[in-house]
Amino acid sequence: MSESHDVPAEEQTRHAQKMARKKAARDRMMETKTGEKGLVIVHTGAGKGKSSSGFGMIMRCIAHEMPCAVVQFIKGSWDTGERRLLTSNFGDLCQFHAMGEGFTWETQDKSRDIAAARAGWAKARDLIRDPSIRMVLLDEINIALRYGYLDPQGVVDFLNAEKPEMTHVVLTGRGAPEILIETADLVTEMAMVKHPFRAGVKAQAGVEY
Amino acid sequence: MSESHDVPAEEQTRHAQKMARKKAARDRMMETKTGEKGLVIVHTGAGKGKSSSGFGMIMRCIAHEMPCAVVQFIKGSWDTGERRLLTSNFGDLCQFHAMGEGFTWETQDKSRDIAAARAGWAKARDLIRDPSIRMVLLDEINIALRYGYLDPQGVVDFLNAEKPEMTHVVLTGRGAPEILIETADLVTEMAMVKHPFRAGVKAQAGVEY
Repeated sequence: MSESHDVPAEEQTRHAQKMARKKAARDRMMETKTGEKGLVIVHTGAGKGKSSSGFGMIMRCIAHEMPCAVVQFIKGSWDTGERRLLTSNFGDLCQFHAMGEGFTWETQDKSRDIAAARAGWAKARDLIRDPSIRMVLLDEINIALRYGYLDPQGVVDFLNAEKPEMTHVVLTGRGAPEILIETADLVTEMAMVKHPFRAGVKAQAGVEY
Repeated sequence: MSESHDVPAEEQTRHAQKMARKKAARDRMMETKTGEKGLVIVHTGAGKGKSSSGFGMIMRCIAHEMPCAVVQFIKGSWDTGERRLLTSNFGDLCQFHAMGEGFTWETQDKSRDIAAARAGWAKARDLIRDPSIRMVLLDEINIALRYGYLDPQGVVDFLNAEKPEMTHVVLTGRGAPEILIETADLVTEMAMVKHPFRAGVKAQAGVEY
């Protein structure tokens, strides 16, 4: 790689003009974005980053001293690190509730899975109703919706009727139901392009857990 | 939503058998995943979550007391919250270097942008070469690659030749070059399905910054 970064004067001017136009267009666009509201945010898709970007947003809330909460619908053994970090450092700002028992192929008990999902949703409703809590992360709730352990229509109706206006609710997990996507304000699909499991590499600290 | 979650005995048994088969298949698959290695991880696409899931992984590293580092190639004003949280609570585990000056349409100065990108990449190389640092997050480096401020081949060659075996390097930003995607172990494309800017809602604390 060349270490020189002298840009000819003519190109420099052309670049500055182009970027000034881009900035003006962007500023005009952003001027129209003045509203503030609590968002229903969905992270779905088969790729990675659904939960970790949810945790990233929780850390952002903590950075802004906004009270927030996490309800985990699937208790994966690899969440102990994040949980410890949240509860031991920021327990005053962020509540953490692990309601699920594990993936459904781990428990192999449908009644127990349904009971855990419904207990998680009951806890979630209490947290969402509390207007002092500014963000509620419902981690892997989409799995419970996909398996039919929770009714998607019931969840959507609750969000529309009872979510305080300024509260953000983040719902993660693959296979988000269409009705939830329709209701949401912000939906990102994390698509898997390449995954190291294919190359025989196992889940590793810092990456998967 | 019905509050009853009694599952008929026959269905319960069928579910348990199906999930037992799923678990067995999964366990067999996971048994083949025994390797550990430092990964080259790319978050790209036009959707949200590229940087926040990078920050989520940094928080996971911190939870595991793995030394780590962040190099920001684009200094957005809204990263102050994360930066303050990282540096004031976990500065002993995580270094934070903001090298970029802002989006290129903010600076409107190509020479300065190139200089900032190259200084960021020089810092990144030092951090990656240090085997005590377990994860290096190169936030928004893909923007610098896309604008030609850094040479993608040079970055890929460096990662292949000099990255210590156990170090994870995370590269974020839309428009990751194809050569980087080919080299990477784990690539996720964050696709925008729905965005609240379209509904006139501005960037908000906890969500965008």
